[in-house]
This record gives sequence, C-alpha cells and structure tokens, in this order.
Amino acid sequence: MKAEIIAVGTELLLGQVINTNAAFLAEELADLGIEVYYQTVVGDNPQRLAELITEAEQRSELLVLCGGLGPTEDDLTKQVVATHLGRDLVQDQQGLKKMEQHFTFSGRRMTENNLLQTLYISGGTPLANTTGLASGSFITVAQHHYLLLPGPPSELQPMFRLAARPLLTALSPVQERIVSRVLRFYGIGESQLVTELADLIAGQTNPTIAPYAKPNEVTLRLTAKASDESVANQLLQPVIEEILARLGQYYYGEGETTTLAQVVVAQLQAAGQTITAAESLTAGLFQSTLGDVPGVSSVFPGGFVTYSAATKMAFLDIDPQLIEIHGAVSEACAKAMAQQAREKAHTDLAVAFTGVAGPEPLEGKPAGTVWIAVASQQGVRAELCHFNRDRAYIRHSAVMKGLDMVRRQK
Amino acid sequence: MKAEIIAVGTELLLGQVINTNAAFLAEELADLGIEVYYQTVVGDNPQRLAELITEAEQRSELLVLCGGLGPTEDDLTKQVVATHLGRDLVQDQQGLKKMEQHFTFSGRRMTENNLLQTLYISGGTPLANTTGLASGSFITVAQHHYLLLPGPPSELQPMFRLAARPLLTALSPVQERIVSRVLRFYGIGESQLVTELADLIAGQTNPTIAPYAKPNEVTLRLTAKASDESVANQLLQPVIEEILARLGQYYYGEGETTTLAQVVVAQLQAAGQTITAAESLTAGLFQSTLGDVPGVSSVFPGGFVTYSAATKMAFLDIDPQLIEIHGAVSEACAKAMAQQAREKAHTDLAVAFTGVAGPEPLEGKPAGTVWIAVASQQGVRAELCHFNRDRAYIRHSAVMKGLDMVRRQK
Repeated sequence: MKAEIIAVGTELLLGQVINTNAAFLAEELADLGIEVYYQTVVGDNPQRLAELITEAEQRSELLVLCGGLGPTEDDLTKQVVATHLGRDLVQDQQGLKKMEQHFTFSGRRMTENNLLQTLYISGGTPLANTTGLASGSFITVAQHHYLLLPGPPSELQPMFRLAARPLLTALSPVQERIVSRVLRFYGIGESQLVTELADLIAGQTNPTIAPYAKPNEVTLRLTAKASDESVANQLLQPVIEEILARLGQYYYGEGETTTLAQVVVAQLQAAGQTITAAESLTAGLFQSTLGDVPGVSSVFPGGFVTYSAATKMAFLDIDPQLIEIHGAVSEACAKAMAQQAREKAHTDLAVAFTGVAGPEPLEGKPAGTVWIAVASQQGVRAELCHFNRDRAYIRHSAVMKGLDMVRRQK
Repeated sequence: MKAEIIAVGTELLLGQVINTNAAFLAEELADLGIEVYYQTVVGDNPQRLAELITEAEQRSELLVLCGGLGPTEDDLTKQVVATHLGRDLVQDQQGLKKMEQHFTFSGRRMTENNLLQTLYISGGTPLANTTGLASGSFITVAQHHYLLLPGPPSELQPMFRLAARPLLTALSPVQERIVSRVLRFYGIGESQLVTELADLIAGQTNPTIAPYAKPNEVTLRLTAKASDESVANQLLQPVIEEILARLGQYYYGEGETTTLAQVVVAQLQAAGQTITAAESLTAGLFQSTLGDVPGVSSVFPGGFVTYSAATKMAFLDIDPQLIEIHGAVSEACAKAMAQQAREKAHTDLAVAFTGVAGPEPLEGKPAGTVWIAVASQQGVRAELCHFNRDRAYIRHSAVMKGLDMVRRQK
C-alpha cells in the first residue's frame, strides 16, 4: 500500500512550525510496511487542500492528513475531506463526553466552536484523543483510505499509536512480521558509534541497523522482518549481542521511550536506595527530571537548589572559606555540596552540580565548565566536565552526566 | 510571486530526518514577500521528482529544490532538473578550485564523484557554498525560476542568505515589506481567544491575524504588508491596541521566542525583587525554568524541592500536625511552604507548589489537583488549580500558573 502524508497549516507554510509530524508518521508507516512516496504541506485554504486531495488520490491509496481539527475558523481539514467525499460530519459522543468533563473539571467556559472538535466523518470511525480534545477520523471510500489526525504532536502521536495503528495493521494483512528493538547509549557520539559498528552496518540486510542521534544520547534501531515474531527475535538476538559486546559500556537501556532517568529510578528502587541533589547551574533540572518518572517518591524525598553562594552556605552549611579559597565552581565545592545534601536529606546518595551555564564565564572559567559530585556511604567522588553549545544544552548535558554517574554507582 | 519548496531525499520520506529546511526557507521567502502555497517531499527517484517538477510548474513560478546535490549515487536533483529543462551541467570553476584546496589541506584523496558536486545548470548561475562543497544553481527558463540548494541546513542556510536572497530580491520588483508581530497570552484557551476576536479575525485582510496554540499558552501572529516598515507598523498598531483592549488581562508579552519566565525575571529585575520556591509535585521544574533565563542569578538565589512530607518538615519546618490535619495537598500546606521558603531564603517573594502529578490519586485527590501559593511582604495567597492530561503536562501547567501568579503580583 502507498501512502501520502499531507500536513495542513498555514503556520507550516510560513515556517513558524517545523513539520515534525511528517517524520513521525513516515517512520511509523515504514514500520508497518506502508510505503510513503510523497509528503506535502498545504495551508488552511479549502480549495488548495481539495485540489491536493484529488492529486494525492491519483498516486496513493492511503491519505494521512494532519492538522486543522481544532476549534478555530482556519481549522477545516475535516470539513474539506467530508465535502470532497460527499459525507456529513457527525458528533463523536465519547469525545463530546470527555470534552464536557474537561470543561467542568478545569472550570473554564466551553465555547460553541469547541463542538467542532468532536465531529468526525459520517460512515467512518472516530479516533479517541487521549491527550487533547479534537477527535480524529478514519474512513474508507472506494479504493482510498483517509486518516485525519490532529496537528499537535502531543495529540497526534498517541492517537496514531493507540487508535490508528491497529486500523492500518488490519488493512494490510502483512505476511511479514516486523520487529523493532531500540538500544540506547549514553557517553558515545553518533560518528564514533557508527565507526565501531561499521562492518555490521555495511553488511546489514535483515535486521537493519539505523543509528539516530538525540541530544546527549544515541539510539540504534534494529528492525527484523520474518514470518513470525519469534523468528524475527532469533534474527535480532545475535546482532544485539555483538553490538553490546562492543559498546556495552555505553548502553543504558532498551525501548522507544525509555529515559536514563527511568533506568536510574528503577535501579534505585531495586537496590532500595534513596537519592537527593544539590543543584547550582542546573537549578532544579536534575530533580525535575527525576520527578518526570511516576513513582519516584519511593526513592526521592527532595533536595536543594543552591544557585548563589549565599544559599550554598545557608541551605547546605558550605564553609564560606571553602568558596573563597576554591571558588563555587570547584571540586571541593561540588564534593561538599553532595556530602552536605546527603546528610541533610538523610539519603543513601546525593548528586551535586556546580558550574558555568553561560553565556558569560564565571570565576574565570568558560561556559560549560561543570563539576559533578556523587556522595554515598563509600565517600564522595567528583568529575570535571566540559560541555558546549548553549546554556540549555549545557544544563541538559550536566543532568544526563549526573544520571549516568548515579547509574554506574555500585 | 508564488513559490513551492521541494525537498528531495528518501531519508525524509522514511522519517529519519526532520525537514527543517522547509521551515527555514518558508520563513525567508515570507520575509521577501514571496508566497509559499505548497511544500513537498519526494524521494531520491528521478521519475517521481520529474513528475513533481512538472506539477509544481503549474501552480508556482519559483521552485526551490533542496537536497540531492552531493557526491553519491542517489544525489540526482541537478541531473533531473537539467534534463527536464534540456540543459547541460557545467563546471563551477570557483567551486572546483575551492574543493581542490579543501582536499589538499585535509590531505585526503579527492575521488572522482566529488567533481559532480561543483556542476551547475548551464545558462544559470552557480551559487557558492561557504560551508561545504556542493555548488548550488539558479536558473530562469521562460516564466519559471529554479533554485537548487544543498540538503544539509549548515550549507543551505548560508547559501540562501548570501547567494540566493540577493537574486530573489532582484526578481520581485514590487518591494513589499512584511512586518510580523507575535503577541503572547496565558490563561485563555485558543477557542475562547478566537471567540473574543471573532469579528477581527473574520474581517482580517491586512494585517492578517493567526492564532496558534502551544502548551499552556496561545500566540497571535499579526502580519502586515506595506510599501515600507513604518506604514506596516501603522497598519498593525490599531489592531494590536484593539486586541489588547479586549484580552489585555491574558497578555504577557511580545516576541517570537519570548517566554513567561523571561518576562517574570525581567519584571523582578526591574522591581529589584528576589524570589525563591518550594516545590513538591513540580520537583524543581519551576526553579529550573527560571534557570533557563540568562542572568537570573540577580533575582534567584535558590530554593527547595520538598517532594516528601519528611523534607517539607526537615527543610521548611512545616508543622507535622498541619500535614496531618490538612494533608500535604492543601491550601494550608501550600501557604506554609511559601512563607517558610521566603523566610529561609531571605527573598522578597516565594512560590510554593503542592499537588498531585499523577497518574495515581493522592490523599483522595485526583491527578491534576494543585495548590499554588505566593508569599510576599504583604502576606500569602493561594489558588487551587485543576490541571489535566498527563503527568508532564500537569507539572508544566503548574509552573506556568505559578509564573503568571508572580507576574500579576504587584
């Protein structure tokens, strides 16, 4: 089956928003064995959208439209497709019920135009929106399938995975099973990783090996095709073992959405250990990243943000002389922060961050200079890091490094 | 003049790469007063690319093609366009000289396929690549202009700005200036906002008014076209005044990348006030968001993450009886946290967050129930909020609300 991805939105045509939905959908469709030959972007213009739909029908069987399901006047994807197909729009009762609950709970006023969001194309299937209000639509007419998804990625992605994917899987009774596994690495760059695996990547056929660089990590997606899942897994297993034999020291976990924080929290839970933090340049980002993980309360009671020298002294009893002699961005200060935080929070472990987020230098040290310390019953150790890029990236890099230091703590 | 952006590359169709070039080019073209009605992505397939060019010629005068100028076998954009136009490819002598110097300097061998990169379409203009090796092409044939740019954004962007932009500016004799202003709102949903502005939006011509919903905020982009910048601003001013007269209470600032945290930090700096925080469910996210702003150290010395009842007591001296009687998710606890944090950090203001991040309920209260308190010299006040969606969204919603409460604090 051939598919075409049509993103609708003037904000895309004006370049105000980057079309990340196309990449997400392309990857998902490829995974389902559905070929995408074209991706298109068109504005919130009913005539041009209708023309594009007619064109797309000539070259593709599946039209995936995203965007334009919202409550405003320029949201018209559903209306244009319905008119094109000669269908009505009807209320998705489940979506409507959810929306009414949403407005009751939040205490906001539900305006008339909100009702538009829960309409779907008559004769088709409404798709539930678990993270927003606009219902999706799926409809088959003659040889063509039309899938309508909301524009915000936070709504489109779960709707695709939970509601659309099963419908598309049923459409293409693929003889082949496709099994993907995602390995995640921290502490190695993409170019070094592909160099270490050059022979495996060059010789890849089944499974395929696709590296992907993300901020401060690299993932490898291995995809095997086989008659059934267990055969696919048999193809994957030796390749994964070979990769881990080479790069095991950088490997932290497996899974599409697994995070280093999740791995660290799970490891602490398994070991029955608790953790706290004292953060200067990261200003709470490490603790907030732990806080992303549901159930973190069993290992994380709380901690400190000590941005200024004054709060390092007041909250953690850091000796003013230590800061005067060594500076706040120093091994001595990082170690003292970690030890004092551990003592005050009564935890097994404590991580401390002190450094220069930038853009300006501090204490004569350039932006990106960061000391990270981990204190435990065995004592305290610290590492000096030199991160780069901008302020946000430096702080994120520090948090990832701190998580990795905790992960390696035995 | 109408333009169409055509990105060429199978890696885009497979979703391995996000098409950021389209957004960059769209923004640049809009700035030149060139309208983009379509963006398209096609794979490294000569036949489909040729078909798409023929189609695009029917709806646009300017075709901007990016990608496929490199040295490998699947780089074929230049060849396909040249064949389509019945032209040859010829050597860009300056580009060739630069490439030879590059290989001499790096000590690497220049392979035969590298010569492909410095070819351009005969009769057109070669475009210099200041950050890479592949030359671009610009050519006008009959009513159509063809601009060929390299795929890597680090090469495409300087080539566009330095070489292509002057050529395009010369093409459009009508020198219209386009001026955009972005107004940012917190505390109002997109649907309510467009309802309040329905008449203005319905009657829009110049300037145009485009609403856009982001997580926990809505922006309005007003775009005016005029003969010069001051005339455009004269068109914008009365519309902005009318919008702010209606929605001023939700307006927090202006600008493409302005954040609520930046506005709050600037306001505190102007007032000479300092701030701290005590965070339970947000676990450092509020403080980390302040930490995103360069120069925040002048107003933010640090604060507390008190996730557990134990740290609320230990770090903030919250009375255990208060928690026992009222619960941790309560007005009394939020107020006590804010007051105690303010006292311990010696700041003018303190914000406290206590609530249920979810997914599980807490103390019988559903996920999304959050108390936020602000303490100042004038006393302490608290608000009960009901946020929804997932854990990450609830925590982000709480942080934005806390920032807004500080912003409104006089």
